[in-house]
Amino acid sequence: MELITIADVRTAADDLAGTVVRTPLLPVPWDEELWLKPENLQPVGSFKLRGATHAVARLAPDVRSRGVVTHSSGNHGQALAYAARAFGVPCVVVVPAGAPEVKVARMRALGADVRTVPPARRLAEAERIAAESGAALVPPFDHPAVIAGQGTIGLEIVADLPDVDVVLVPVGGGGLGSGVATAVKALRPSASVIGVEPELAADAVESLAAGEVVVWDVDRTYRTCADGLRTNLSARTLAHLRERLDGIVTVTEDEIMAATGRVLRDARLVAEPSGAVALAARLFHRDELPGGRTVAVVTGGNADPAVLAAALAV
Amino acid sequence: MELITIADVRTAADDLAGTVVRTPLLPVPWDEELWLKPENLQPVGSFKLRGATHAVARLAPDVRSRGVVTHSSGNHGQALAYAARAFGVPCVVVVPAGAPEVKVARMRALGADVRTVPPARRLAEAERIAAESGAALVPPFDHPAVIAGQGTIGLEIVADLPDVDVVLVPVGGGGLGSGVATAVKALRPSASVIGVEPELAADAVESLAAGEVVVWDVDRTYRTCADGLRTNLSARTLAHLRERLDGIVTVTEDEIMAATGRVLRDARLVAEPSGAVALAARLFHRDELPGGRTVAVVTGGNADPAVLAAALAV
Repeated sequence: MELITIADVRTAADDLAGTVVRTPLLPVPWDEELWLKPENLQPVGSFKLRGATHAVARLAPDVRSRGVVTHSSGNHGQALAYAARAFGVPCVVVVPAGAPEVKVARMRALGADVRTVPPARRLAEAERIAAESGAALVPPFDHPAVIAGQGTIGLEIVADLPDVDVVLVPVGGGGLGSGVATAVKALRPSASVIGVEPELAADAVESLAAGEVVVWDVDRTYRTCADGLRTNLSARTLAHLRERLDGIVTVTEDEIMAATGRVLRDARLVAEPSGAVALAARLFHRDELPGGRTVAVVTGGNADPAVLAAALAV
Repeated sequence: MELITIADVRTAADDLAGTVVRTPLLPVPWDEELWLKPENLQPVGSFKLRGATHAVARLAPDVRSRGVVTHSSGNHGQALAYAARAFGVPCVVVVPAGAPEVKVARMRALGADVRTVPPARRLAEAERIAAESGAALVPPFDHPAVIAGQGTIGLEIVADLPDVDVVLVPVGGGGLGSGVATAVKALRPSASVIGVEPELAADAVESLAAGEVVVWDVDRTYRTCADGLRTNLSARTLAHLRERLDGIVTVTEDEIMAATGRVLRDARLVAEPSGAVALAARLFHRDELPGGRTVAVVTGGNADPAVLAAALAV
């Protein structure tokens, strides 16, 4: 399996300038060695805009004109819909039943044609639509251009905090971790990049231990409130993570909700639960992490109002 | 009355680099010609960090070593406490009774000595403490260095959106409006800078119409939920606003709460009610504003959880 390189990430950065918000690093009042990277501030509310925009930009114009299709529980779907609209091409998003309403409504508002299917069938349905319509399949993580786009977060972290010691990234399908680890380890080899996942969807922990993709079925991963992290790795993202990730830790559901509340009250940011897991690791599992100047990536903020109300009450 | 100049604002910008977060402009999904300037992302949760840091930096070292004192309903107090801690000097904040608990607790957490007095007595008490202790009085807005510090927001807006047409700023004491108008009108004279205040604290509207500071007493201004905007102008800020502000509009309490909810749900930012009034003007009084590419300054995010819960329910 060929891995992406820092050169691929730099190419993505050139593609994204002007479309994607250059997010700052935010110091927090309660921890002098912690900064947040607030990707919830992207126009679609998550980092997924980076990978989706780069992937659509890289399509040959005649291919792109037939449109794009993907499967997504919400954030990648919104990102691809936004990117497709920017290029003036149609977009179909196959959504697993149970995806948060707020995300589905926003995909529709961006002009996407949304089709709901049982979770286990989402990839097959997206592939069927691609084959039938000629639309290009832009998967949420299992794609070199998507991984390179997400990696631009790592470029920006090292540019803004050149002496960073630790970068914490949530792991769902593994695209973000693959891209960020590629960039950070190339630019600052002494820094550690650590993945974080819910203990109720700890398929990446098991996959890294086993050296092969261990699949957790949807009945199991759907127990976590971190709906963006229910996905399993692909062979491609596992290959990147095995080579470049320095470790992975898990957090509990209570810790995720507490971190969601903390970031809302004390960092004035709306994070969805999936977006708060990296912070949860710093808050509750500091003894399992390397010390030093740490950046936690807040990956997204598309939380249902009921979830925010619950986080405020924690 | 001598007004500050763009050179003063540039000096402030040099002072602030490295301490203050360089906030980005954030496009919003519902309005293609609107960007938010999220000053709630500063480490103390509001733009006040700019003016306070610049004012403390400009004190002569022997003066600064005796400490600083101010009066504040909360955000300037937090900002001065943060700046004083950075310089290793003591800080006293005189707080009007009725200030939000979340702000008072944060001032204390930053090491400030907090003294609560009836609202009408806050200035006199701060002056008394300054005279008694030798501490330097750093007022929340009636000070050239504070105004120049707030003006750096205008510098950044024009740098990031050179063809900006309209900048909307909340008006309380008028320091922010004075500074931002100084910077924006110097760098892009064709742009309009418009003030926004609650109709329940519309003393600036009356003062600008009368050409002199019209004082609304605290019983009147304390009706608004926008606790940061209950202050009257000073002769200094009125002089700046008369010369450089292009207009001023008012918003209702319902509009303020609706804007607070909108920014929370759809821009993933926690704004306090005072921080959402500029957005409220764009949402609900567009016919009173010039058209074109508009920036609304989100000034702060230190909202009590009960206020956020109320905003979510709007």
